[in-house]
Amino acid sequence: MTAFVIVGHRARTDGNFSVNDLPGAGRMDVLCRAVNASFFLSHDLRRDVTCYLVLCGEPAPPKTIRFDGSTLRSLSPDERSAGSLIKKALSTVCGSEFREAAAGVFVRKGGLDRLLTEIPVAVLDEQGTDIRTAPHLPDAFLLSDHENFTADEEAFISTSPRFSVGPKCLHADHTITVLANELDRRSAGWK
Amino acid sequence: MTAFVIVGHRARTDGNFSVNDLPGAGRMDVLCRAVNASFFLSHDLRRDVTCYLVLCGEPAPPKTIRFDGSTLRSLSPDERSAGSLIKKALSTVCGSEFREAAAGVFVRKGGLDRLLTEIPVAVLDEQGTDIRTAPHLPDAFLLSDHENFTADEEAFISTSPRFSVGPKCLHADHTITVLANELDRRSAGWK
Repeated sequence: MTAFVIVGHRARTDGNFSVNDLPGAGRMDVLCRAVNASFFLSHDLRRDVTCYLVLCGEPAPPKTIRFDGSTLRSLSPDERSAGSLIKKALSTVCGSEFREAAAGVFVRKGGLDRLLTEIPVAVLDEQGTDIRTAPHLPDAFLLSDHENFTADEEAFISTSPRFSVGPKCLHADHTITVLANELDRRSAGWK
Repeated sequence: MTAFVIVGHRARTDGNFSVNDLPGAGRMDVLCRAVNASFFLSHDLRRDVTCYLVLCGEPAPPKTIRFDGSTLRSLSPDERSAGSLIKKALSTVCGSEFREAAAGVFVRKGGLDRLLTEIPVAVLDEQGTDIRTAPHLPDAFLLSDHENFTADEEAFISTSPRFSVGPKCLHADHTITVLANELDRRSAGWK
């Protein structure tokens, strides 16, 4: 099992946005692409992946959406498809425990601080250990959207291991794709 | 300089489509994501990349759109942004030579057969040489959209070198991301 956690610092926390303007919903497009990168193979979904979106924008922050590859359905590769599932989750009344809003898509109130008590994550960081040279890779990775982690978030992850995917700073979705490729290679015995 | 060439087998060849339904325009969403993967760094564009889209759908196939990273502007990471530039290019009257439709975006009539006489490409193929173990990587790569290459296309590329990015079959945009990471590492002297 692999988990990807992506923080959307300004991503809206209700369903009152248009899938025709995902950037306008607090850069929800960044999160939609991260969902795509987490799950899609050429003609399949990665069933052993969980993707968490931590949404910190108005009007009801924070909320956490969980996509479970094992039961996920109705996800197409285009941004609007992930956007529609996020919108459905954010339109679902929820409390402090995960509630299923669509097949394989769950939502709850609460943010990164709680999630990190449940899942120990490694952080993607340009100064981290190269993923290709690390003897072992962890099961869960934390990424930020287009903004840096806040000071509060940095405090939560100050002791987390840090990994780098390469010499250039990439978007979150591209980072997930490179990570998934490294994990695929290790699973298959490729170098 | 690196070039990525992506064939859109059913991608529309006029501007008569909505950026709110890119999948309905012959899976134009696949090509939009390939453009994103070709160019985006975290806070920059890859200025040394050219991306060619070969569009083979109705009503006026084939057409070729060229995105030049060196002069490209007005491209945002979301699918609709690339879709808008493609729509603008396909709405531009063009002949057999490239005509600029927007900054860094060019369009002409003609398809893969002509392009391959101008650019020698390597083909992405699960049975190809692993990109990590290849002593040298070429400057141009050819990828297909969600469909396999046709028999005619396979005939054009029967003698092209073939490379694989990993043990699992990936979407075109994810393949480009993994390729770009390998090229980044080689340029920077990383393993």
